[in-house]
Amino acid sequence: MTFLYKADPVRGAQWARLFAEKAPHIPFHIWPEGSDAAHARDVRYLATWEPPAHLATAFPNLELVFSVGAGIDQFDLSAIPSHVPVVRMIEPGIVAGMVEYATLAVLALHRDWLTYAAQQREQRWQPLRTRTANERRVGVLGLGVLGQAVLAKLAGFGFRCAGWSRSAHEIGGVECFAGTASLPAFLARTDILVCLLPLTPATRHILCRELFAQLPRGAALVNVGRGGHLQQDDLLDALDSGQLDAAVLDVAEPEPLTPGHPLWRHPRVMLTPHVASMTQPDSAVDVVLDNLRRHRDGLPLIGLVDRTRGY
Amino acid sequence: MTFLYKADPVRGAQWARLFAEKAPHIPFHIWPEGSDAAHARDVRYLATWEPPAHLATAFPNLELVFSVGAGIDQFDLSAIPSHVPVVRMIEPGIVAGMVEYATLAVLALHRDWLTYAAQQREQRWQPLRTRTANERRVGVLGLGVLGQAVLAKLAGFGFRCAGWSRSAHEIGGVECFAGTASLPAFLARTDILVCLLPLTPATRHILCRELFAQLPRGAALVNVGRGGHLQQDDLLDALDSGQLDAAVLDVAEPEPLTPGHPLWRHPRVMLTPHVASMTQPDSAVDVVLDNLRRHRDGLPLIGLVDRTRGY
Repeated sequence: MTFLYKADPVRGAQWARLFAEKAPHIPFHIWPEGSDAAHARDVRYLATWEPPAHLATAFPNLELVFSVGAGIDQFDLSAIPSHVPVVRMIEPGIVAGMVEYATLAVLALHRDWLTYAAQQREQRWQPLRTRTANERRVGVLGLGVLGQAVLAKLAGFGFRCAGWSRSAHEIGGVECFAGTASLPAFLARTDILVCLLPLTPATRHILCRELFAQLPRGAALVNVGRGGHLQQDDLLDALDSGQLDAAVLDVAEPEPLTPGHPLWRHPRVMLTPHVASMTQPDSAVDVVLDNLRRHRDGLPLIGLVDRTRGY
Repeated sequence: MTFLYKADPVRGAQWARLFAEKAPHIPFHIWPEGSDAAHARDVRYLATWEPPAHLATAFPNLELVFSVGAGIDQFDLSAIPSHVPVVRMIEPGIVAGMVEYATLAVLALHRDWLTYAAQQREQRWQPLRTRTANERRVGVLGLGVLGQAVLAKLAGFGFRCAGWSRSAHEIGGVECFAGTASLPAFLARTDILVCLLPLTPATRHILCRELFAQLPRGAALVNVGRGGHLQQDDLLDALDSGQLDAAVLDVAEPEPLTPGHPLWRHPRVMLTPHVASMTQPDSAVDVVLDNLRRHRDGLPLIGLVDRTRGY
């Protein structure tokens, strides 16, 4: 019943140490160790960012596949046998990191930090009118574990908070919108839009000209989803026309962003290299071990992917 | 029993509207209206940033002086008759604004936003190791209403929080240090230092070379107190030697900061033009009217200044 880890080896070493401490009965290997023909039949569990090729034939006894990240859009689900459950990473460390970053991005836009940074470069000391949080409407696209945690934190600052999701939700202090038909109403009341959707065929390039046009003029965007959510050219047009005032982007398409791309130099864009949130080995291993117990006992898995939804 | 307002006239007009609505029995004037000899004898209450000259003789029946800001360091207390109480502005709006700004500044330093902004200018896509909030020690100098509110918010992110004050405090989840003798221990455990002290002769230039040397190497500074707290030349030396890694400054000395001053252009400094927090007329007028009732009824005033402490 080997556990195989195929992702960043530095973090893999932390996982190995934690497994040795918390579950010494489970043989743990870091790819490519443990993946040769002699050992591959023992592999029951795989944690990975990019699954190995020929997964089904190489690891015939595979029982569970874990993504080491919050998303599984990098997986080709058709290459994973249909009887093998796929599990997204939902762990407290990844949630805490996302709450930090999204709060930072929303506060930076709310408090005009891109403008003040530009004024500083020009040596201009010019206070702007400050809006209170109660005058600022924040909207989060995506009401999974991450979206809900971000909204709970932002509501604590007094922002007027709303969330949109494919399915209906009820969240205290948050105006919830569900389904495609309600998207225009959600956008029309949103000054700062935060994207925390899963990337699926249905959400690819959802952040486009048509969507931006439904926001109030001068709205701002935070993309902490995936680069594939955003039509980058449409964002540039919206910024240059003034339909959007500013954007904070943690993701791009491709990554790294193409050298010379105008988003690198746009004065109304803050760009970070996909660092909003990272899986924290300590808490991730606890969640993985809990899921292994649940799997053994036939209980529901935390973060189980619905293959028809794609997340 | 006239109330005289002498500060920013735009905000004064908001105060006038709120007084007309909430306390129509109190004549309200915006300086210089109501300050001529014919009317000055009626002035009982003054709300101001910079008090008028010859206060004692010009307004012989003055009973109360309010600062429209959180500090009173801009007042010459000796020019205000000793029988006239002086009141600082402690109101929910100013607290909320400071909590937003200090949280933004601490998160920006914690999540390396100055470095990522520099990398963006160089078109470099280079993730840095992210520390968790639990690995970051934040320390707040000053445990008044603002310092305590900032610490409560930061503790909610999981930062290891401490506070230092002249007098002893007990705050849940915050390690409290009191008095000069404990300052070195407080500094030695602080990765991000936030200054929220009142400006008095005892705290002028407290943020100096000697203090920086007691922080861990590579610590960061947030000054949301007053420009006079900081020895600006010592900060530049500390940044250039690497003793400090970065600083977020909302205040300067003088304001506006001198044209050409190196702080304008320093890549490890984020500078904003004294906008961290502003008195919000709505909530401020409520607090002022409450204090007028307390004054009439002989109850303790909220924000009463202790003239011997100077805050």
